[in-house]
This record gives sequence, structure tokens and C-alpha cells, in this order.
Amino acid sequence: MLSHILLINCPDQSGLVYKVTGILYNKYDLNIIRNGEFVERNFNHFFMRTEFSGEFDREELLQDLYAVLPENVDIKLTDRRKKDIVLLATKEHHCLSDLLIRHTFNELNANVLCVVSNYDVLEELTRKFDIPFHHVSHIGLSREAHEAAVLETIQQYNPEFVVLAKYMRILSGDFVAHFTNRLVNIHHSFLPAFVGANPYAQAYERGVKIIGATAHFVNNDLDQGPIIAQSVIPVDHTHSAREMAQAGRDVEKNVLAKSLKLVLNEQVFVYRNKTIIFE
Amino acid sequence: MLSHILLINCPDQSGLVYKVTGILYNKYDLNIIRNGEFVERNFNHFFMRTEFSGEFDREELLQDLYAVLPENVDIKLTDRRKKDIVLLATKEHHCLSDLLIRHTFNELNANVLCVVSNYDVLEELTRKFDIPFHHVSHIGLSREAHEAAVLETIQQYNPEFVVLAKYMRILSGDFVAHFTNRLVNIHHSFLPAFVGANPYAQAYERGVKIIGATAHFVNNDLDQGPIIAQSVIPVDHTHSAREMAQAGRDVEKNVLAKSLKLVLNEQVFVYRNKTIIFE
Amino acid sequence: MLSHILLINCPDQSGLVYKVTGILYNKYDLNIIRNGEFVERNFNHFFMRTEFSGEFDREELLQDLYAVLPENVDIKLTDRRKKDIVLLATKEHHCLSDLLIRHTFNELNANVLCVVSNYDVLEELTRKFDIPFHHVSHIGLSREAHEAAVLETIQQYNPEFVVLAKYMRILSGDFVAHFTNRLVNIHHSFLPAFVGANPYAQAYERGVKIIGATAHFVNNDLDQGPIIAQSVIPVDHTHSAREMAQAGRDVEKNVLAKSLKLVLNEQVFVYRNKTIIFE
Amino acid sequence: MLSHILLINCPDQSGLVYKVTGILYNKYDLNIIRNGEFVERNFNHFFMRTEFSGEFDREELLQDLYAVLPENVDIKLTDRRKKDIVLLATKEHHCLSDLLIRHTFNELNANVLCVVSNYDVLEELTRKFDIPFHHVSHIGLSREAHEAAVLETIQQYNPEFVVLAKYMRILSGDFVAHFTNRLVNIHHSFLPAFVGANPYAQAYERGVKIIGATAHFVNNDLDQGPIIAQSVIPVDHTHSAREMAQAGRDVEKNVLAKSLKLVLNEQVFVYRNKTIIFE
Repeated sequence: MLSHILLINCPDQSGLVYKVTGILYNKYDLNIIRNGEFVERNFNHFFMRTEFSGEFDREELLQDLYAVLPENVDIKLTDRRKKDIVLLATKEHHCLSDLLIRHTFNELNANVLCVVSNYDVLEELTRKFDIPFHHVSHIGLSREAHEAAVLETIQQYNPEFVVLAKYMRILSGDFVAHFTNRLVNIHHSFLPAFVGANPYAQAYERGVKIIGATAHFVNNDLDQGPIIAQSVIPVDHTHSAREMAQAGRDVEKNVLAKSLKLVLNEQVFVYRNKTIIFE
Repeated sequence: MLSHILLINCPDQSGLVYKVTGILYNKYDLNIIRNGEFVERNFNHFFMRTEFSGEFDREELLQDLYAVLPENVDIKLTDRRKKDIVLLATKEHHCLSDLLIRHTFNELNANVLCVVSNYDVLEELTRKFDIPFHHVSHIGLSREAHEAAVLETIQQYNPEFVVLAKYMRILSGDFVAHFTNRLVNIHHSFLPAFVGANPYAQAYERGVKIIGATAHFVNNDLDQGPIIAQSVIPVDHTHSAREMAQAGRDVEKNVLAKSLKLVLNEQVFVYRNKTIIFE
Repeated sequence: MLSHILLINCPDQSGLVYKVTGILYNKYDLNIIRNGEFVERNFNHFFMRTEFSGEFDREELLQDLYAVLPENVDIKLTDRRKKDIVLLATKEHHCLSDLLIRHTFNELNANVLCVVSNYDVLEELTRKFDIPFHHVSHIGLSREAHEAAVLETIQQYNPEFVVLAKYMRILSGDFVAHFTNRLVNIHHSFLPAFVGANPYAQAYERGVKIIGATAHFVNNDLDQGPIIAQSVIPVDHTHSAREMAQAGRDVEKNVLAKSLKLVLNEQVFVYRNKTIIFE
Repeated sequence: MLSHILLINCPDQSGLVYKVTGILYNKYDLNIIRNGEFVERNFNHFFMRTEFSGEFDREELLQDLYAVLPENVDIKLTDRRKKDIVLLATKEHHCLSDLLIRHTFNELNANVLCVVSNYDVLEELTRKFDIPFHHVSHIGLSREAHEAAVLETIQQYNPEFVVLAKYMRILSGDFVAHFTNRLVNIHHSFLPAFVGANPYAQAYERGVKIIGATAHFVNNDLDQGPIIAQSVIPVDHTHSAREMAQAGRDVEKNVLAKSLKLVLNEQVFVYRNKTIIFE
């Protein structure tokens, strides 16, 4: 049976859990499969994620919830259906390969609608998996013109989420604004260390003993959006910058996959540039 | 203000969260600070941990809860007060040192009532921290007689939890039965690998690349009780068995401290020889 | 320029490094790129791995080395050329996918000659990457007959290494004896815990807080060969056995890839059922 | 028997290992216990660490080595004897406690000569372990005057290494210049992220999923010296800044202890603001 997912966040007050479970249990007799709550204590903000099954009228349920919850509540009622996603890439294959393989074997809770890239080097790979590939070259185009072309390509598919699977072009605030909390990036570094380009060269130069990767939503500033997942591996002086990059690639693809699992299963809230995650 | 902690577990059924929060919120107007639920799906068993503050009559609240919950429910109503504990050790200092230091600086949510040991080598250490030390030697005593002497020493203090901080004597089922889910052991191995004695010699012999430690309740069989926390570190062929043991000691003390934090803050349920932990 | 790799192991004695570097430097004027030594102290056994470039006569160099080293020395003189390998799989794709992707993008220091499987479910995947796929079904065959058919298929290709990429059939000692220190397996568990079948069911049942995977050579007993690499991830009570298996798959493929990197770059010695690894 | 340690670094050239082992083996018949080499490839710089036992004349051996090695070689001939160290602290006890315990049980390859602090809160702890405690208050003193007083106190003891065990005062370049590659600091952050004050508040604000600690030499700029060791732990949205700091303390003390093990056993080279470590 299809699971429904209810995501609620609002200023905290007494009785919120009682009120929500009252509607789900008392009025609709829905079967709660999993339930989690969290109160952020700096701002006293309440988060609740409930997975349930059963029959109900969507509009009526929402109205009932709005009636008992604070005025400025944010409610999302979604379900476990596969989400439509579009992947952007440039030349590096490792994140794209990993996602295409997972998609092929039905391990990603998503329909990969297409791949968009500013190079054609990953076209052959993409076509092996019978996914449309759009080569939108930036050669000869202004940044704005290229971005507009990429945006138009994406919008044909109307995806719920867009994934930057090692897409190496900086995106403008205008572009990003189309996909608030829906644009996931993998940053080849353990943010906030080594923001920007060539993090592995920076890491080598600095002689760090651990490197890592960060998956995050892109909401405005480069590399500054809400962090979804991070992971690290040890390195040492025997690693050249190139070997750090090689080692880093495995971390990058694992962290991106993990973050997508959380996002696609609707386990992630964004609040004040941070994520609240129900695992 | 003192936090109260309500731990409930029972066979799952609809409406449990609604019923419990109804009593806490509707009837008693208590302030819920943190709330967590989990349903084990193999046996459909429900677990709920609620931290709250406010005024209430203990007996009345318990009666109200029993009235709405399934007949065979298990309810524990406790609070955040420091728990009384007794530490057992033998000759190795690292876990005992760590706990005494944490206790001294008020970082362990416990009153360490005394240390009991079958050797006197840790007496000087213990006295530095003004904790009573009982040397209960096993020399010349049968296993039963020694265990009885240890038990008698412990029972003078009536502790809520007993911690085996590298106590290297095997305890009988009779002894253990006095402290169901109240006796915490640190096992110098990543259970279930290398059960029993000399795990580091076994690990060296086997050429493992990772070693670890396990903190668990001791409920019956040696090294087979519910696991509370585990941790690991990498090793390689350059580690002798002795160096593995050295490296392992840091893991042991960290894992034991972590498990005690969970236990002393009443975050741990035991169910069918496993732990359900609300972190 | 091609790197040569010299692997020496013998009972330890004074002057071994001096003697070997003397031949390489003094007599042949070879350029040492990387050098490592290790002495196992329980048995006083010496290991040395030297990577060098330059011109030399292979037979003459070996003779010179044998002349100055102990009688029972074991010398391997190889190079950085890609090794020929054959992959065996059953139904699970994750390790095979990962290796095929790495191979396609030239990240595995190997030529994947073919894939052999007792099922045909991974044939489509394999063919996407233009690698020959041999379906050698076990249906209707005795264990011996099936194994003989698999062996015959492998031997047509004369591989240097054979990789069990989630091949779920137990192999006989006779089969294994054809590939001493050349047959790499990924075990879906953190050995020596949970030897044998269904490790994730065992892990769930036992309530462990960490699961892992082990890559090892298969030399005789099931799951008992020299360990090459291990890795772990944390789990908790919210993971069902199925979710542990899912989480474990990512660890398995990463550990297998890591072990192959070490093996294919000739960084691994085997000694007394353990590995000595020069990273 | 006492182990001697020879640390050599110089521009790389052919035959260095042969020449050094020739002197140790051929001329002096010394017994090499452990030997390691590394060549940094960006600048082609050679590093060699050799541990050996036997009889020799120190000046003669050094002369022989200088005779065969490049002109600008850097040679350090030391041994496994305990190093004299001084500990600086402020108010937080966790790193100091850990080092005092290890010292008491002979697990630190060092003589702790004294503790210097700008507060007296850790005096009672220090005295438990019979270590002199010097309270050098900064109250009413200029930064320069206070630093001079601290320096004078340290220099009475003439330590080989100085350890900043959560010493929370910024040190001037002049102070630091007295202890090049001999002043070890633990930074309460995973450098280079969150440089400077209040890293845990910064980490909470940023919503990171991993926090860590860095042990490094202090050679000039604050928090910018050669990194010796780093470690991390996972955190999530349920951690307040205070809870991140608590969790971070265990990492800090473990990383500082690990870095001191490396430094005190003479396993660390410093080269171009990075460390080369022979583990």
C-alpha cells in the first residue's frame, strides 16, 4: 500500500503532537507507520514527519490540519512515489555513473528523466542506460545565454529535483531561485574548508590528514546552502593532490547518493539555512 | 527545572502516541521537551520515550497511563537526577581513569559510590579522586565465595547501575541476575568477533584491518548481552598484538563512556536481547 | 616510463636493504621511485617492495639478487602493466557494476577479460560495457561438474587474478588451489564476525551497532583467507535486516575496489595467512 | 637495549638509501630495527627515518653521514628516551586530564615537568598527579608582559616540547619562534574550517554534519602550522552548539594524544608547512 508522508513545521507550542495524531488517528483512522518530532531550541521551532497509510480526502485532511495548527505553519503532504529528477554533469563520470547504475537497478527512489551536460563526454555512458542526453555547450555563449539554454532544457521535463552530479559551472542566483530546496549539489570538499575551486590542490598544499565531501542544497551563494550529508576519509603525506582527488571521488559519489536517498524519501526539512533530517 | 522521563514499551496498536500525549498535554498540561517513538516491525512492538517538565502526581499519572495502554505495557517513569553507580575493575586503569575524571568534573550523570577490585593496583588512582576503594581479593577463595564477597560489597551501596570497567573475572548467572539491564560491561573486542579471552592476540593472528570495542549489558551468557555501543579503529600489519591492545584501549574507554551517557540518561530500552536507543 | 616492481620476502638478517639497493643503484644504476621495508617481529621475516625505472636484463638482475639474499628468499619482479582479470558474479549487481564502471573509465589497473555467472541476470549489464559474459548455470549439474565448467571457462582466458564479485557459490579446495593468492573475494560481513550465510540477518538478530565488509584472498577454508581490506558503517535499531543489507552493499563495493587497487598495483604480500600491505 | 633514531631529509638523489644503510650496516654493524623512506614528488625531497640499536661514536657516525649525503642535508640523531615536556592549559580540563593520566601510567613517552596556566582552576587536578603547577595570571598584565612571564616559567624547565592542552591565549610570533616544530597545539576544529574562536558555535550555525579536531605545530600564524593529526565525529541537527562542544572534547583529547605519540617517538618531519609522518 502507498505510504503518505506528512511534513509539518511551525513555531513550537504545547500539544502539537497530540493535535496532529488526533486528526490522523481519531478522525481518519489512518495507520501511522513511522513518526518523528524535533524542536529546534534556539528558535523554538517544531518539526514533525509522519508516514502513514489509509484512505482520506487530501483537501479535507489539509484543512483539518490547518485548523488546529498555528497560523504560519508549513505543511507538505506527499508520498513515497518516485520523484522526477534531472541530472546535470560536466566531464567527470563518477557521480553520474553511480546514479545511473542505481537508477537502472531501481535503487534510487526517482525517475531520471534526462542528463544535461555542457560537454558530450558522458553521452556514451548515459545512452548505455537509455536515458536522454542533452549536450548544451557553453562554447560561444555568454554565461546568461548558456544558463538560459540549460534552464529551458530542464524545464521541458518539469522535474521535482535537479541534481548537480559534478556540474562544474557556477549557477546564478536567478537560476537557483527556480529550484529552492530542490537543487542538490555535491561539493568536492569538506565544507566549509576549501570553498571554491581546486579543493584537492588546496588540501595537498595545506597538508591535511582528512578529506571529505559535502552534499547540499544550492539556494543562493556558491557552496553555502543547507548541508544534507558529509563524509570524510583519511589521507596522508603519501597522497599527491591527484591521489587525493581520486580518493575523494569515492566519497563524493557515496555522499551524493546518501543525500539523494534522504531527499527523495522526503526526510529533509530546511530551516534557516540548515537541514533537519529524520533518518 | 527537573526533567522527567517516561519510557513506555508495549505491543503496537493504533493511537498510542495520541493517547499518551493526550494524558500529558490534555489532562496534566505538562511541557513536553523531547519525544521519540519507534515501532520494531518484526514483532510490532512499540517504544516511546518522552522527556517533560511540570507538576503532577506520580501515582495518578501512572494510573492514567495504565488505563489507556495495553495490558502488558511496561512503563518506567524516572528523571534526570544523577544515578548511583558502582565501578568494578581489575588491573587496567584506562576505563576507570576515564570515568573517575569525568565524574570529578561532573560530566557523568552519576554518583560514583565506590570502586571494587580484585587487585589493589588501582587503589592509589581511585583515592586521588576521593572515591572509596574496596579490595576484594580472589586469592584463596572459591569463585562462588569471591563473587559473594563482591556482591555483598556492592549491595551495601545499593547502586542503580554497576559498571564493569575492565573487570576481568567471569561472572555467574546468579550474580548477573541481580542486575538485569543494570550491569554494563566493556568488551575488548568488536563483538561478535573474538568472543572471550585475548581478543587482540586473536585479531593479530587473524590479520584483521580493523579492531573495535563493544559496550553491552551483561544479562546471562558471557559477552552475549544487548549491545549498547560499538566503535572501531583501523589497524594494519605494523601493529603487534600489544600495539593493537594499546590502540584498542582508547576505543574501549570512549565506547564505555558513550554507553554510560546513553544508559544514565535513560535513553536505552532492552527488547529481545537488543537495545532500542533514543539519541 | 614503465615502472618495475620488485617484491622480496625472506627471513630477516642484517644488511638486506643495503644489499638490494646496492644491486639496483650500484650495479644497474636504476632509478628507485618508491621503497618500503617491513620486518614481521614474531617470526623475524623481512618484506621489501621497491618500485624503480630504468634498463636492465631481467634474468641477470634476478640472478644478482638471488646471489646476495638468503637461500629461501621469495622474489617477484613484475611491473605496473594492467593485469588480466576475470570477474565471477551471481545475481547481485553492485560490486560488478562498480568494477565495470571503473574498468570502462580506465580506473582499474586491469583488463577485465570476461564475466562468468551461474545466472544470466547480469548479462545485460555486462554487455552494456562490451565485456564477454558467460552464463554457466549450475542447474542440473553436480557441484563438481559445475565448478569444472566454471574453471574451464576461466582458464580459457588465463587471467592473473580472479575476482568473486558477489559470487554466491562455495568453492572447493581443489578449485581454490588453482589460484593461490590470486582469488579475491568480498565477504558481506566484518569477518570474523558472522561467518557464512545471511550475515545481515545475523547482525540484525544480534543488534549490532556497526556492520562491515571484508575483502580477502580465498586460499582454503571458506571466509578464512588473508584479509586485504575491511570497512564498516554504523547502523542502529531502526535498520531492518534488509536495510542493513542495503547499507552494507555500498561498503562491500568500496572495500572490494580498494582491495583490488592494492592487489593490482602489487602492494600486497601474503605471509602466514595474513597480508603485509605497502600503501 | 636503547633504540636510536636517525632522521634525514635532503634533496632527493640516487643512492641515498644505499649510502645510509652502507654506513649503518657496513661500517658500524648496527642493527636496523625499522626503516622508512619517502620522496616528496613536487619538490623531490627525500626523507628517511631509521631506528637501530648497537654501539657507535655519535660524532663519528654523524661525520660519516654528512660525508656521503648532499651538502644541505638535515640530520637529527636522537633516541627513544622520554622527552621533557611542559603543558600549558587554561580552564578546560579534558586534554590536560588525559595527558596527566597517560603520564602517570607511563603511557606517554615523556616526562611532564610542569603545568603552566593563566587560571588556577586546574591546579587541584594537576597536584593530584604530583606535577608542579604554575599559575601565571594574565590579569593586570599587558599581553607582552604575560607572555614573557609564561616564557620565563617554561624556560626554567628547558623542555624539548611544549604542549598547548587547550591553552586559550593567542601567542605572539616572538614566543612561537622559541619553539619551532616543538610547540604542539590542539585546535578545537577541523582545520581549515572554522579558524579562530567559537568553532562549535560556527559549526552549529552552519549546520555541519561532521565536526573534528586538529593537532598541529604552532610556527607562526594562528592555526596555520603543520598539521600532525586530525579526527572527526558525526553530528546532526539534534546537537546544540554546547553538545557539539561536548562531543568535540573527546575528539580533541584523542587527537592531541595521538599527535604527541607521533611527535615524542620522533616519527614526524616538518617540510614546507606540512608533516611527513612515519607510522
